[in-house]
Amino acid sequence: MIPVERAQMAMVLEVTAYPKPGNVDRCHDYEGTRLEHFLASAILVRPALERAAGCSGGIGEILREAVRLTTAHGGGNTHFGAFILLIPLLRGGDIPGAVRAVQDSTVEDAVSFYLAFSLTKVRMLPKDPLDVADPRALDVIRERRMTLLDVMDHSKEHDMVAREWVNGFRLTRKAADHLHRAGCGREGVVETFLWLLSTEIDTFIVKEHGMPVAGEVRLRAAEVLGGSGDLAAFDAECIARGINPGSTADIIIAAIYIALGEGWEWDCSRKE
Amino acid sequence: MIPVERAQMAMVLEVTAYPKPGNVDRCHDYEGTRLEHFLASAILVRPALERAAGCSGGIGEILREAVRLTTAHGGGNTHFGAFILLIPLLRGGDIPGAVRAVQDSTVEDAVSFYLAFSLTKVRMLPKDPLDVADPRALDVIRERRMTLLDVMDHSKEHDMVAREWVNGFRLTRKAADHLHRAGCGREGVVETFLWLLSTEIDTFIVKEHGMPVAGEVRLRAAEVLGGSGDLAAFDAECIARGINPGSTADIIIAAIYIALGEGWEWDCSRKE
Repeated sequence: MIPVERAQMAMVLEVTAYPKPGNVDRCHDYEGTRLEHFLASAILVRPALERAAGCSGGIGEILREAVRLTTAHGGGNTHFGAFILLIPLLRGGDIPGAVRAVQDSTVEDAVSFYLAFSLTKVRMLPKDPLDVADPRALDVIRERRMTLLDVMDHSKEHDMVAREWVNGFRLTRKAADHLHRAGCGREGVVETFLWLLSTEIDTFIVKEHGMPVAGEVRLRAAEVLGGSGDLAAFDAECIARGINPGSTADIIIAAIYIALGEGWEWDCSRKE
Repeated sequence: MIPVERAQMAMVLEVTAYPKPGNVDRCHDYEGTRLEHFLASAILVRPALERAAGCSGGIGEILREAVRLTTAHGGGNTHFGAFILLIPLLRGGDIPGAVRAVQDSTVEDAVSFYLAFSLTKVRMLPKDPLDVADPRALDVIRERRMTLLDVMDHSKEHDMVAREWVNGFRLTRKAADHLHRAGCGREGVVETFLWLLSTEIDTFIVKEHGMPVAGEVRLRAAEVLGGSGDLAAFDAECIARGINPGSTADIIIAAIYIALGEGWEWDCSRKE
């Protein structure tokens, strides 16, 4: 499987894994965002992924293309956070390569990222001078000569995906390692998803619902993993309350991409 | 959406449509063949689809490549029948173009098709001189100077996918027309699937279970469509008995490919 296909498979395997608390999966859609939107995104983003894996274009501009290719449908932003991780991983080939790729990012990458961002409905923190909704943000980036890595550094406190850029893709690496231990296929993905949710606060939940809810979700995930909580009930409650661990999903996608390249098997029937 | 992506989307939209009697869908896997196998097939076949849409290689050889790219996983043959329809449709661009493409098929295409066939677990009729399990079949093809269209003509009585090659993709056209009437998205696909199942005997069911069972399935589908049958119960019974309308699914995929090119909308949220 070539790297671009590993990235597409990672998106497909994450979204179809179930039962998975709160997110779109085989058995759940959100109003306006369905499983099909995620699968279409995984197919339609391919030209941008090919440019990332090749030597054509800057990371920021490719990210903008990825968003443009995948927001033509009505399902809103589906894989924006995943693209932020996958594009440097594809450019660099592996995690050390991705670290070099993000260090090479430029002010132009940051500008393109903001233009991509404005195509999505993703929110930054209120009253942030780099708020994407504020047209002066682009001026701030240019005046301060901020690279895309600087922008991610600015966002790292409140965004676990941005944090990956700054800390050497630490959670991506840890989750890929966990996936190898958890075993093949869908069951391995679900186990790794729950493990990450139980060990890290999901910053997307913090943005949408506040820290107490995010902390509660982490605790509930730990209870399910420890055997004292019920996964189906946890899932149903997340869905009912609109609690969607979207950043955890983004990191799981990056982890599946890495693990597939290291021999992790998505297809348990091939191992038998 | 370029034609190759329309073909990939058609495979994804067909397999995720539910509830769909008997086949793998969002809520059902078969032992050894899971939803992920179908989604992986839709992603991994892309290089063969690109050759079909371009001018590189003969139809039979591309079919062989498509099977090779998608049988590396352990889920068995997933989209063989769909590839038989999609590859000439991609080569020709539309149905009239596909009719010309299959008329241009050669003896070498037939040989490649047989070699592709032997990679799958698909059965032909017992005691057929063109049985793929018989190593002399290739000699028969070469001696009789049979093109791939001749092979399909030979199979047309007992294989509705082969019949499409011979009769100008008649059911593909009818199902695409029905899809336009049935409306957007998943619900349109399910409605069209049931309609096709209720009007045509599925030849895959005939091969696996015999004509009486195939006739019964057609009747049950008509009852569901007419409002006197329950879709969930029908689905559960098909799954329990291993009744899998695979050839109907193949034609639905081809129909989605055609309909997408004619403006049919997979994403209902975009229509609002």
